[in-house]
Amino acid sequence: MDNDTIAAISTPIGEGAIAIVRLSGEEAITIANRLFDGINIEGVTSHTIHYGKIVDPATNEVAEEVMVTVMRGPKTFTREDVVEINCHGGLASVNRLLELALAEGARLAEPGEFTKRAFLNGRIDLSQAEAVMDLIRAKTDRAMNVALKQMDGHLSKLIQTLRQELLETVAHVEVNIDYPEYDDVEEMSHEMMMEKSKRVLKEIERLLQMAKQGKILREGLSTAIIGRPNVGKSSLLNALVHENKAIVTDIPGTTRDVIEEYVNVRGVPLRLVDTAGIRETEDIVEKIGVERSRKVLKESDLILLVLNYGDELLAEDINLFKAVEGLQVIVIVNKTDLDQKIDLDKVHHLAKGNPVITTALIEEKGIDELEQAIADTFFAGELDAGDLTYVSNVRHIQLLKQAKQALTDAMNGVEQGIPIDLVQIDVTRTWELLGEIVGDTVHESLIDQLFSQFCLGK
Amino acid sequence: MDNDTIAAISTPIGEGAIAIVRLSGEEAITIANRLFDGINIEGVTSHTIHYGKIVDPATNEVAEEVMVTVMRGPKTFTREDVVEINCHGGLASVNRLLELALAEGARLAEPGEFTKRAFLNGRIDLSQAEAVMDLIRAKTDRAMNVALKQMDGHLSKLIQTLRQELLETVAHVEVNIDYPEYDDVEEMSHEMMMEKSKRVLKEIERLLQMAKQGKILREGLSTAIIGRPNVGKSSLLNALVHENKAIVTDIPGTTRDVIEEYVNVRGVPLRLVDTAGIRETEDIVEKIGVERSRKVLKESDLILLVLNYGDELLAEDINLFKAVEGLQVIVIVNKTDLDQKIDLDKVHHLAKGNPVITTALIEEKGIDELEQAIADTFFAGELDAGDLTYVSNVRHIQLLKQAKQALTDAMNGVEQGIPIDLVQIDVTRTWELLGEIVGDTVHESLIDQLFSQFCLGK
Repeated sequence: MDNDTIAAISTPIGEGAIAIVRLSGEEAITIANRLFDGINIEGVTSHTIHYGKIVDPATNEVAEEVMVTVMRGPKTFTREDVVEINCHGGLASVNRLLELALAEGARLAEPGEFTKRAFLNGRIDLSQAEAVMDLIRAKTDRAMNVALKQMDGHLSKLIQTLRQELLETVAHVEVNIDYPEYDDVEEMSHEMMMEKSKRVLKEIERLLQMAKQGKILREGLSTAIIGRPNVGKSSLLNALVHENKAIVTDIPGTTRDVIEEYVNVRGVPLRLVDTAGIRETEDIVEKIGVERSRKVLKESDLILLVLNYGDELLAEDINLFKAVEGLQVIVIVNKTDLDQKIDLDKVHHLAKGNPVITTALIEEKGIDELEQAIADTFFAGELDAGDLTYVSNVRHIQLLKQAKQALTDAMNGVEQGIPIDLVQIDVTRTWELLGEIVGDTVHESLIDQLFSQFCLGK
Repeated sequence: MDNDTIAAISTPIGEGAIAIVRLSGEEAITIANRLFDGINIEGVTSHTIHYGKIVDPATNEVAEEVMVTVMRGPKTFTREDVVEINCHGGLASVNRLLELALAEGARLAEPGEFTKRAFLNGRIDLSQAEAVMDLIRAKTDRAMNVALKQMDGHLSKLIQTLRQELLETVAHVEVNIDYPEYDDVEEMSHEMMMEKSKRVLKEIERLLQMAKQGKILREGLSTAIIGRPNVGKSSLLNALVHENKAIVTDIPGTTRDVIEEYVNVRGVPLRLVDTAGIRETEDIVEKIGVERSRKVLKESDLILLVLNYGDELLAEDINLFKAVEGLQVIVIVNKTDLDQKIDLDKVHHLAKGNPVITTALIEEKGIDELEQAIADTFFAGELDAGDLTYVSNVRHIQLLKQAKQALTDAMNGVEQGIPIDLVQIDVTRTWELLGEIVGDTVHESLIDQLFSQFCLGK
């Protein structure tokens, strides 16, 4: 077991007012104390903060002016002793502090290792740990609420309830088999198992239904804007960016070139293709034909198809409708400031039930309606998204799908009258799969892999 | 006076493990307490840290899981009550915390306002406050040491000692004038003033002598690499970047395009012109002639002139030497792996005492010598740069220059036998100018302007 003392810079890299080097482990306080010129922090009360200087023991040179927070386990993030050294936020100085901590015997923490310890030491379960990372990466308030609820254990509790039900069934069935006082034991077991399985299956299906939305809240909705030249695609992009806070996020890692742009439309984070991309999609149908362009467009979660109010529907427009058939589309009839030439009845017919919004984007008309349409598409009938437990994590969704399959297998078995002890194998498998979500039944290598996606110092 | 409660995000913007919202002012603890779901932090001991949740009072929604540090003035950075809310480092979540603090009555802090309060409340003087910013921006350990010493008050003490000497002189002279018991009062005053002034002037000159190095430590040494095509300029750039940690810094502000690249060569931060720049300097002499290119090159603090060992000196090479005459140059004769065709005696002659280093950069030979030459150029005879009090701030350098001028005026006045009460005006002016460095005699608008250059949350 890794019980050694780990250290890392826990604030984002960059110029800031405060930077933190965090230590966790048995030696955290001892190591910090050897560097600290101030009160003896080995003797202080837990959860107190102290002013002083960090001095390089090798040279006796002052390395920084700091505030040191001492927190003794188990009432800490990792349940171990934790020391946080707050310094003036320079790159060079926080790096020096980290180097000094490492020189005194701490080990550089792996990405996510603090949170991993919180999990391994039982402070949080796996889905809560994953929520910590989701929270950090959250692009909108809604995404944040989903993560917060998961972090707070909403999903964990729900999953554990389902697992408990399955466990009780299995236990009950086993008792019945071991003590067959009644003649109709088999039948009773089958009946009960069917009933319980149905209930659990319903919950799993409900979670999966909301998973798509959860995933969108978490990862953003990749949105393509298509239309003939000059219908107002750039105006649309500008309107969405202008009306809403564009959230430009620097993706952490070695390359600092990768920048994604998000627009928060009423809580739905749209991941907009850039102008270059728009130029591409405009020609895409012409260039590669309806069939192949469909494949490309299918990668988008939402397509905004723009038409010109002041122009007749052309063959290109009809082709665009063909290309997006069956996909999530909002049709925008732009330029209502021009004289109408477009046949709106035909547009509605082509839209096949998808929302049709009329706008005059240059005059900032219709933007509200468009935004509402976008929000409606993804929060239809669920006004208070904050109250729901969303599954947003791909790993969780996969496990739920597998659990659903295993449970369906069990139910089929019951219906086919397969012996209860064989059916039970599938129920137990369902119980295990759900356990992987919260980390009760999960392989160590998976845990390592999961936490390695965290950022350094977390 | 601004005594209201200010709030800001004090960690760099980006994804990280921990983000901090800092509050300072009379209401800091009250405001934080209204948002905090945990222990009543208005009642806690100072300098303690508490686990809990931040809840939006308007909606009762949980906004974050946090650790809240309570520090009561005057033992804080600003000498006011300070609360630091540590949260999981997401952009959306730290923004929400800040918004909640603002909604509860805090005011968004201006850049540098926390440090400004530390200054206005007398915890640090102006040069110390400026050192805080230098520390954050420090690119190398040496630069950091300079900032740390200044922050610790080394420069302040020196300046105050000089001011004290000047003040004593002025006081003494005034006493002499007011009580002219002796016949030779005038002469005595002149003599004493001359003697004291000389001592102070010597110190000012010493500080100014070291200012160039201090400035380089602080801002980096802008370095141009010039030479004919194919002499190995790109190899040189790569070697310097490869051998040393390249420190790429994101300059804070609205544009995230401005990225400066620093290479730390034995404590000297080189600000390297990029490859595009190199291509430019290669043609510069040819294109715009020796005279005009000199002007361009003069903006560089250091020029690395690269020659080809396997080729004869050409007219272009000679022109390069002409263009850099009188500037700080290191001559690099590269490609020693080729057969020698260059006349090294002639190179040494052209170099006029500037260091000449031979390298085979592709084979990684001579890089050590080159780095030593770069370091020697700027730390000649001052091995332990850490022990010196550097003046690195442009504002300080300007004030020292003005102080030197005023004091020289005074001394000239003494020599010309100008009445002591007139000479005294210049001495007082010197005293004032030195006072501006530490902020004793400084205009409020200057203070505002100085602190506005700080980063947000500091």
